[in-house]
Amino acid sequence: MPRIVLHDYFRSSASYRVRIALNLKGLAYDQHPVSLVAGEQQSPEYKALNPQGFVPMVEIDGERVTQSLAIFDRLDALVEEPPFVPSDPPGRAHVLALALTVACDIHPLNNLRVLRYLKTELGQPQEAVDAWYRHWVVEGLAALEALAAPQAGTFLYGDQLSMADICLVPQLYNGRRFDVPMDAYPTLLRAEAATLALAPVEAAHPDRQETAQ
Amino acid sequence: MPRIVLHDYFRSSASYRVRIALNLKGLAYDQHPVSLVAGEQQSPEYKALNPQGFVPMVEIDGERVTQSLAIFDRLDALVEEPPFVPSDPPGRAHVLALALTVACDIHPLNNLRVLRYLKTELGQPQEAVDAWYRHWVVEGLAALEALAAPQAGTFLYGDQLSMADICLVPQLYNGRRFDVPMDAYPTLLRAEAATLALAPVEAAHPDRQETAQ
Repeated sequence: MPRIVLHDYFRSSASYRVRIALNLKGLAYDQHPVSLVAGEQQSPEYKALNPQGFVPMVEIDGERVTQSLAIFDRLDALVEEPPFVPSDPPGRAHVLALALTVACDIHPLNNLRVLRYLKTELGQPQEAVDAWYRHWVVEGLAALEALAAPQAGTFLYGDQLSMADICLVPQLYNGRRFDVPMDAYPTLLRAEAATLALAPVEAAHPDRQETAQ
Repeated sequence: MPRIVLHDYFRSSASYRVRIALNLKGLAYDQHPVSLVAGEQQSPEYKALNPQGFVPMVEIDGERVTQSLAIFDRLDALVEEPPFVPSDPPGRAHVLALALTVACDIHPLNNLRVLRYLKTELGQPQEAVDAWYRHWVVEGLAALEALAAPQAGTFLYGDQLSMADICLVPQLYNGRRFDVPMDAYPTLLRAEAATLALAPVEAAHPDRQETAQ
C-alpha cells in the first residue's frame, strides 16, 4: 500500500469529500490538519507543499495531488473498487456533470475566502453573507435535483455509488449549517441517506475528526 | 460521425472552452446560440433541454452532456486524438488539477449571474464589481502559474496540449477584458501563445462567432 498523507480541515467541504473517497477505497492515511480559520494554509511550510494554499491535498508516496475531483480520479487509478465513475461513457459524463455541478456551481461561491471578502472588502453584514450562501446553495441544489432525478436510483446515478454522491454529502452538510431547507430535493436526500449509511462515509464526517471543535 | 449540437454563448468562458475542444477533435457541430445577456438560458424551451439553464451543453446524437469538463471527458471517449489528458495517472491528475483550478477556483466567482447578484442584490457599484472580478482572477492565475510552472513546457503540462490549456485560453481572454495585467504569469502566457497558434483554437474565439457583437 502507498504511504498517503492527507492535508485537510475538518469542516472544509472538499476535504470532507476526499476523506470519504480515501475511506471508501480502504486506503489508510496520516492526517495533517490545516486550520483554515487560523490561516495555517498561508504558512510558508504549507505553501511550500501546495503553492495555492488550499486544502485538501494528498501526498501519495510523495506525489502531491490537489483539487478534490483530480484526487478522486487519481485514487480510481490506484485502487479499482469501488469505482467512482461508471464505465460507460454517457453514464460517466453524467456523473462527472453532477459532481461538477457541486464542485463548480455551488461550493466555490461559499468558500471561507469568498465569505470573508464579502464581509471585509465589501463590508456586508452577516445577514447578507448568510443570504448569499443560501442563495447559491438553493439555486445549485435545485439544479442538481433536476439533473439527477431522471437517472437516479438509490444513489444519484442508478443504484451504484459514484463521485456525485461523494460530492453531495458534504454539500448538504454545509447547507444545513446555514439552515437551508432540504424538503424540495427528494432525490438528493435519498442518495445522501444511502451514502451516509456506509461505514467508511460515516467515519469521514467532520464531527468524527480529532480536530473538530 | 455523430450529429452534434452545441448550445453556447459566444463570450461565455465555458462555451469557449467547449468550442476549442470540439474543433481540436475535428468534430463538426451545429451551433445553437443562447444569449445569456437576453436571458434566453431561462426560456422554457432551453430549460426543457437543460434544467440548470446553463451553457454550454452539447447534444451527441441526442445524448445531452453539460459541464465543460464532463464534455471534455465525453469527447475524449468519442475521438481519441488529440487526447485531452496524459495517459500516466500522475500526469493526468496534475492536468485535471490545473483545469479544475480554472474551472472551480476562478471562473465560478466571475460568472454573469454572480456579477449580477453583486450589483443587484448587494447594490455594489460597478467599480466594486470590477475589483471583485480582478481579485479572483489575480489570485487564481497566481496559483495556476505556481502550480503549472515546475512541469510546464510549451504547454501547461510538458509539450503536449491538454485540457488545462483549453481552460487557460478563455480565462486569459476574460481577464484581459477586465484589464488584469498578465506580466506575472510567463508560464501561462507561453502556453496560451502555443495554444492560440493552433487553427482549431483560433476558430473558437468569441470574435469569430456569428453572434459576436
